[in-house]
Amino acid sequence: MFPYKSIIQIHKSNETPVYLQIANAFAREIQNGVLKPGTKLPGARSLAVLVEVHRNTIAAVYEELSMQGYIELLPKKGAFISKRIPDIKPKPVGSKTRVITYPVASGFLIKEKTSLPEIGLVKKSVLEFNDGLPDERIAPLDDLMRNYRSSFKRRGRIQFGYSDTEGNPMLREAISGYLNETRGLQTTGENIFITKGSQMGIFLVSQLLLDKKDVVIVGETSYPAADTAFKYAGASLVRVKIDERGIDVDAIEKICKTKSIRAVYVTPHHHYPTTVTLSACRRMSLLALSERYGFAIIEDDYDYDFHYKSSPILPLASGDHEGMVINIGSLSKNFSPALRVAYIVAPKNVIAELAKLRFIIDRQGDYLLEQALAELFKEGVIKRHLRKALNIYHERRDILCDLLKTKLSGAVNFNVPDGGLAVWTEFDKSRSLKAITMRAAKNGLVLNDGSHYDEGKNNLNATRLGFASMNAGELEKAVRILSGAISSK
Amino acid sequence: MFPYKSIIQIHKSNETPVYLQIANAFAREIQNGVLKPGTKLPGARSLAVLVEVHRNTIAAVYEELSMQGYIELLPKKGAFISKRIPDIKPKPVGSKTRVITYPVASGFLIKEKTSLPEIGLVKKSVLEFNDGLPDERIAPLDDLMRNYRSSFKRRGRIQFGYSDTEGNPMLREAISGYLNETRGLQTTGENIFITKGSQMGIFLVSQLLLDKKDVVIVGETSYPAADTAFKYAGASLVRVKIDERGIDVDAIEKICKTKSIRAVYVTPHHHYPTTVTLSACRRMSLLALSERYGFAIIEDDYDYDFHYKSSPILPLASGDHEGMVINIGSLSKNFSPALRVAYIVAPKNVIAELAKLRFIIDRQGDYLLEQALAELFKEGVIKRHLRKALNIYHERRDILCDLLKTKLSGAVNFNVPDGGLAVWTEFDKSRSLKAITMRAAKNGLVLNDGSHYDEGKNNLNATRLGFASMNAGELEKAVRILSGAISSK
Repeated sequence: MFPYKSIIQIHKSNETPVYLQIANAFAREIQNGVLKPGTKLPGARSLAVLVEVHRNTIAAVYEELSMQGYIELLPKKGAFISKRIPDIKPKPVGSKTRVITYPVASGFLIKEKTSLPEIGLVKKSVLEFNDGLPDERIAPLDDLMRNYRSSFKRRGRIQFGYSDTEGNPMLREAISGYLNETRGLQTTGENIFITKGSQMGIFLVSQLLLDKKDVVIVGETSYPAADTAFKYAGASLVRVKIDERGIDVDAIEKICKTKSIRAVYVTPHHHYPTTVTLSACRRMSLLALSERYGFAIIEDDYDYDFHYKSSPILPLASGDHEGMVINIGSLSKNFSPALRVAYIVAPKNVIAELAKLRFIIDRQGDYLLEQALAELFKEGVIKRHLRKALNIYHERRDILCDLLKTKLSGAVNFNVPDGGLAVWTEFDKSRSLKAITMRAAKNGLVLNDGSHYDEGKNNLNATRLGFASMNAGELEKAVRILSGAISSK
Repeated sequence: MFPYKSIIQIHKSNETPVYLQIANAFAREIQNGVLKPGTKLPGARSLAVLVEVHRNTIAAVYEELSMQGYIELLPKKGAFISKRIPDIKPKPVGSKTRVITYPVASGFLIKEKTSLPEIGLVKKSVLEFNDGLPDERIAPLDDLMRNYRSSFKRRGRIQFGYSDTEGNPMLREAISGYLNETRGLQTTGENIFITKGSQMGIFLVSQLLLDKKDVVIVGETSYPAADTAFKYAGASLVRVKIDERGIDVDAIEKICKTKSIRAVYVTPHHHYPTTVTLSACRRMSLLALSERYGFAIIEDDYDYDFHYKSSPILPLASGDHEGMVINIGSLSKNFSPALRVAYIVAPKNVIAELAKLRFIIDRQGDYLLEQALAELFKEGVIKRHLRKALNIYHERRDILCDLLKTKLSGAVNFNVPDGGLAVWTEFDKSRSLKAITMRAAKNGLVLNDGSHYDEGKNNLNATRLGFASMNAGELEKAVRILSGAISSK
């Protein structure tokens, strides 16, 4: 007889009832082709003795298997594996020691649709010169939680049902008002589309605008996650020089004369990664070019609110009357990277298309979190926090720049950034930043070797040193480790 | 002289300082091509008198504009619009009454990459036969909030920094354990990828597997949002008949013999929309076919946990030893549509590719919410809730079926569903469901006219009547309105 006892393992502590555990064991062996169609199963009484359960339990097993279609119960004849079950090449025969495992790899092909980069996440709870992240320790998280909770308590279907794909209407209004007041825009809530982080904004816009054969202009140094999204949508990239006044708009004009350009991606307030601000003249020239040649300007204002020299420069979108600019901003920089709320500012027809697109990606955002944020805007908490954060980050920028000047003089070269949350730092070419990075990591300081800012093409030997998430003591400690990593060989 | 007073509007109550309001007004008119390069601006004293502010304010305005690059301050000569500013064709001249508005439409072209369907969201707070949504009023939302809050309070960088794109490791482990116990799987946490709702699962899998020219088999009636995701990825669909034992696997085999099939999309536990369960024999045949022809099976177990007749049938994934099945499940059905947490179960190499893909879409999910859910699993709250919900929904299914039988007899035809959260209801062909739907809506009952379940090809005159989100009284009221809508002309 088939070794039934060996295929049936009963765990009494398991939540699944015993009869179902046994039925599932049978189903598995039928699926494995071990128990063949037409096979007669043992009588309930003898199987009950064999596996040490009550006879009624086995009766329930057979009932279940019959209902699921695995076996047929023939009156007076007994239980048979259904003849409608296909004949399967048997998998290794069951034994008590056999471990059934989940497949280790897919049996179907996965296409390399595009070479997506490997994900490198930084280890937590070490000192880190990150890319320019905010300090969540100073963020008004308690206020956020208070509002989140009270939204949660309201419990209506509005809170807990499906909601607008474009985002929470209150937050769209709040952001519109904030942008109109601080960035010289003339939007209404209908021009605002809420996304999960600016990455989703960039992804949605890429999918909406780009197709195979389209060309996107980006900086010679650029934001790799945006570049990847453009390439994923099928576009090819043309890189343009960045100098101390931002992206070279004359060079863009030359390119436009020779080929059709679909979009230009810029981070004009503080160029990513080098932090330079696009000059007023170039802004106006770029807008004029976009009108002439019909390309879209994707303006990524990722850390707009943090500008220390003069006031923030008005975004390109504020001077756009022809609907050439799609502006992307983020609230994550005000709180923490984990709170992934950002927004796209665009004419209404663009917003409508974005909504259709997002509907098939993830349908909607986090209504409750968005409502809590909207209330923080209304209460003035966001503005108060931004003023406070601006002061703190301004101070931290000065502390870091001072440390770099006094402790690393000769080894690094940098300009004090007018804004943003990181210092673009060039290391002396005689010292490999890659090696420095590895030595620093061993001593508990994580920093980026900067090679991905230009696809590793030129040996930049430069990186962004984010200062906002560290206080004075941490910055000092970090620079000390960095200094050690530079001098040791 | 240029009418400076007319372009400058000062709002003292505005958060933006007065000097900056004036500077922004100048910047705007320069951008508009109204103030031309080389133009000499009035002296600080005379402008101050003109717009009724202190002379120092105007000095600050010119300082700001100079820093931003709009003007040049020449010693002893005064302030001039920078000659580096490009000459722009002027927009309508400024006047006090001119309203500057945001562009009403994009100036660049938006391609119709694919015909994305219009989004139709149901109006809130009316009676609704929805698609089969849970009742958030019985969900353990307070427990969820308690855990969310305590995660929030921990405040570490783990909670508030960037986190794993694959999802919160605790939740991946918890779901793996739950699936192994209830669905006969043998996964580890590494086989689980957390998504924002099952829609994102379907979208990610589509993007990963499908390309132009690929063919996906779906049911003759199918889940429209999945179909759209497949088409968006470039695939074409082949539709296969659904009968009372689920999708016709023999028909699938025939197609495989004539063309290359990339994937088969099924909802085997309760077919969407008709709720029939795929028979055991067909499951095994489908798996065998996938191994023979190399297509992937996308198994969408959207409402797996709710099965009233016999025990839940083990998913296809439980019988898959060759890595042919990608299983998608959702936790939203346990709580509410607004809590968008679902998961993909797949071999590790698939998980790794999914992570790279998601990284460029929105980088990561909601770590805190996922942690709160993981703790609910650990505490046993989820299991307790599912048992309770199963009983309640079972009862509501019976109430609705009883009402349909007694109140709408002759007008509708249906089978009592073995599981799921909706009754597939065919309306007598002599009565147009579209007309019934419109009449019902006028009387406060929203229901779906069902035309999108098969792209409106056959006149199904049938729809899903979701029963789970309504209690006995609400169901009775809904059927009363429906009955009225059927009989009135």
